[in-house]
Amino acid sequence: MTGPLKVALLGCGTVGSAVLRVLQGQADELGARIGRPVEVAGVAVRRPAHHPDVPAHLLTTDAHALVTRDDVDLVVEVIGGIEPARSLMLAAFEAGKSVVSANKALLADDGVALHAAAAKAGVDLHYEAAVAGAIPILRPLRESLVGDQLSRIVGIVNGTTNYILSRMAETGAGFGEALAEATELGYAEADPTADVDGFDAAAKAAILASLAFHTPVSAADVHREGISTVTATDVARAAEIGCTVKLLAICERVPGEDGDSVAVRVHPAMIPTSHPLASVGGAFNAVFVEAEAAGQLMFYGQGAGGEPTASAVLGDLVAVARNRMTGAPGPGVTGYANLAVRPMAETPTRYHVSLDVADKPGVLAAVAQEFATHDVSISTVRQTGRGDAATLVIVTHSAPDAALSATISALREMPAVRGVTSVLRVEGLS
Amino acid sequence: MTGPLKVALLGCGTVGSAVLRVLQGQADELGARIGRPVEVAGVAVRRPAHHPDVPAHLLTTDAHALVTRDDVDLVVEVIGGIEPARSLMLAAFEAGKSVVSANKALLADDGVALHAAAAKAGVDLHYEAAVAGAIPILRPLRESLVGDQLSRIVGIVNGTTNYILSRMAETGAGFGEALAEATELGYAEADPTADVDGFDAAAKAAILASLAFHTPVSAADVHREGISTVTATDVARAAEIGCTVKLLAICERVPGEDGDSVAVRVHPAMIPTSHPLASVGGAFNAVFVEAEAAGQLMFYGQGAGGEPTASAVLGDLVAVARNRMTGAPGPGVTGYANLAVRPMAETPTRYHVSLDVADKPGVLAAVAQEFATHDVSISTVRQTGRGDAATLVIVTHSAPDAALSATISALREMPAVRGVTSVLRVEGLS
Ligand SMILES: NC(=O)c1ccc[n+]([C@@H]2O[C@H](COP(=O)([O-])OP(=O)(O)OC[C@H]3O[C@@H](n4cnc5c(N)ncnc54)[C@H](OP(=O)(O)O)[C@@H]3O)[C@@H](O)[C@H]2O)c1
Ligand SMILES: NC(=O)c1ccc[n+]([C@@H]2O[C@H](COP(=O)([O-])OP(=O)(O)OC[C@H]3O[C@@H](n4cnc5c(N)ncnc54)[C@H](OP(=O)(O)O)[C@@H]3O)[C@@H](O)[C@H]2O)c1
Repeated sequence: MTGPLKVALLGCGTVGSAVLRVLQGQADELGARIGRPVEVAGVAVRRPAHHPDVPAHLLTTDAHALVTRDDVDLVVEVIGGIEPARSLMLAAFEAGKSVVSANKALLADDGVALHAAAAKAGVDLHYEAAVAGAIPILRPLRESLVGDQLSRIVGIVNGTTNYILSRMAETGAGFGEALAEATELGYAEADPTADVDGFDAAAKAAILASLAFHTPVSAADVHREGISTVTATDVARAAEIGCTVKLLAICERVPGEDGDSVAVRVHPAMIPTSHPLASVGGAFNAVFVEAEAAGQLMFYGQGAGGEPTASAVLGDLVAVARNRMTGAPGPGVTGYANLAVRPMAETPTRYHVSLDVADKPGVLAAVAQEFATHDVSISTVRQTGRGDAATLVIVTHSAPDAALSATISALREMPAVRGVTSVLRVEGLS
Repeated sequence: MTGPLKVALLGCGTVGSAVLRVLQGQADELGARIGRPVEVAGVAVRRPAHHPDVPAHLLTTDAHALVTRDDVDLVVEVIGGIEPARSLMLAAFEAGKSVVSANKALLADDGVALHAAAAKAGVDLHYEAAVAGAIPILRPLRESLVGDQLSRIVGIVNGTTNYILSRMAETGAGFGEALAEATELGYAEADPTADVDGFDAAAKAAILASLAFHTPVSAADVHREGISTVTATDVARAAEIGCTVKLLAICERVPGEDGDSVAVRVHPAMIPTSHPLASVGGAFNAVFVEAEAAGQLMFYGQGAGGEPTASAVLGDLVAVARNRMTGAPGPGVTGYANLAVRPMAETPTRYHVSLDVADKPGVLAAVAQEFATHDVSISTVRQTGRGDAATLVIVTHSAPDAALSATISALREMPAVRGVTSVLRVEGLS
């Protein structure tokens, strides 16, 4: 093959326009890295008039025609969403073209089918930008750690919620107030549901778990809780026990009698301030990885934004371009382990519970009995009295999540318990 | 090709024995990841009698014969040192075999020739384990960030010196005392020269700079200062300005009038405690990366030890095995940018200087004049008096290193200066 490699760019929004800037501005440098010049074949958008900066002859609204054009070698999909992104990817594969994407929603929804289609066509499907923006995490999982056995991934993979929780900790504000500030500063979208309710983090968790455990995991397999129920009290209670509240994406390999399974969940949790993830503030992302031989690793950087995300897209683009030249696609994604996904109810977790109780003899005993009845053992209890009322702060040992939540329900019914003022899971405590 | 892929293991010490354990214990898992079984063809050592755990029929002292055996597909070199490691690698390439190595000394010394030999033979040369042990950093640089423009890498890449400096900060001990403790606990070798004098870090810096800037950089190009001259006073002074002392490996792209150049150096420096690298304690390693589009990234984990290093070796082994099966080697290392290496004297740095001076009018003016004479501008001055003596603590702006060191020499000669009590570079201050 000679002549330039031609790239079809699908979408030219926040990410696409940053990709285009680099593709055009640093074409020589990229060409040197690939070993062959690269050139933009066309840019598909919805509203061409909104893109005065893009050379008119490159713009098209017919993404399908662009993808299947004979002279196009590689496709970059940064439209987002499920359709038409999925059909466009499948059309690219069928036409023998490798795809680079940043589309976490689609990959988490339908990764297995898309990988199968790419493998069938003998082309590459890369999507480093889909998880944690600029941070190289998928390639390290797919390639660097492929000789190791992963046991656990804990990530802060959503900048919006991390910003909100950081502000709640700094200012003592409640969720609503911190969200309003984030919206005003542009850290949260007008409709913040995808971020705040954990959908974005759950999609990323599914992708991370699939790669880490060689097991197909889709967004629907992920237990998901958002941060809108996190209160100023939760944040204050966390500080009292030397912890901070983070929205965590957790992917674990859980050993079991009938073989290992994987548990994948997204929820707010208290982590000790000494944990490497605790100091990841503001809109930054970080992914903490535990592997059998490698031990503890952490990857840190910017999780969003046009330029950082474009860095990841371009790294993938160079990789698939090189593979295109050698004629051999890179390693696909393997699902050979195919572990069972463990339901949240059976996943071991630990709870932090704060109760207002009557300060009478026997109350602690009754509360402790309720935990014991559900087979949940207690790690620490702190009791502080004020007048005829007292506060009990309890941290449990690890137990199946269902047993813990059943305990909470039972506590709420106890006459001696005036109120359950804070319930949050705890991670990373020894 | 059918049948198992056969691996020749050269060396079976700290790293080699951990690699062998995984190759034998998790052969099925590795085979699934590669798509073909893997098998150990032989293990070359110096003293077979010292290896009772290795099946006798695998042991050999003739590494050269093992490497060139027809049935060997891949070679893992974990002997270390320059010879015979280099000759063995070259023999492997000539015989058409890809090599995985952990040998920073050799790669930093002779990387260009080795890469050329591998490229000529159409095989792979991977060495993720050579820098920062288990931390995936070379692959992210070579592949994930290849579409970006790197401006700076700052790494804590030597666990021994990081342990010693961490202990000095925690206990107020001097270098000698902290080194003795590290030796006793096994964190420092009996002959600690390679670590303490910065040779190990310099080799890693050369490898990082070569990959980051697409420019051949060898260990000899790296300006190197160790930590044996760091005093308890330096560490205390650092704390006073909200800093901590670390041995840093710094690789920079420095813009210049006649084009960019690279500056690569290893020396102790003060960094602000708020910097992500400041909290990397004990024997951990971390590499901080700044790229144009990606922004700031950090990679953190265990930098040494048999198991963590084996994790990196095995990741490389899976990669080269897969390439072997597709028949296409991975991307080589490019030196196309071939930037000039800037000498330390011309590299911009900042100094922290602490002086005991006579507390007389005009002393500060005279000292400040000395800086001005060398064209070094001052960022902050702190003066604390005691009796007829005073201490001046000065942090400069950035200036060519030669101008800074000339200023220090001149200060030592000034009658009003009773003593220069601490001189250390400062990094990461705004
Ligand atoms: N933004 C980030 O920080 C970030 C970070 C990581 C990953 N991502 C992922 O990157 C992808 C793109 O995100 P973004 O923020 O760049 O989105 P965006 O700003 O909304 O841009 C979307 C682009 O797609 C175009 N488009 C929409 N429907 C189309 C259609 N049917 N045919 C052709 N073009 C169409 C739009 O065209 P018009 O401009 O004409 O409307 C627009 O240019 C998403 O998958 C997102 O999850 C984003
Ligand atoms: N140790 C770490 O934490 C670490 C971390 C990162 C990278 N590395 C790198 O990994 C490499 C190996 O380090 P290591 O700590 O495993 O070294 P090591 O414990 O000293 O082991 C060296 C091995 O090589 C064998 N050997 C020496 N000369 C030989 C020869 N001429 N022919 C055949 N075998 C020979 C030795 O045989 P005998 O056992 O018979 O003496 C021994 O098994 C070095 O390049 C090092 O820089 C090490």
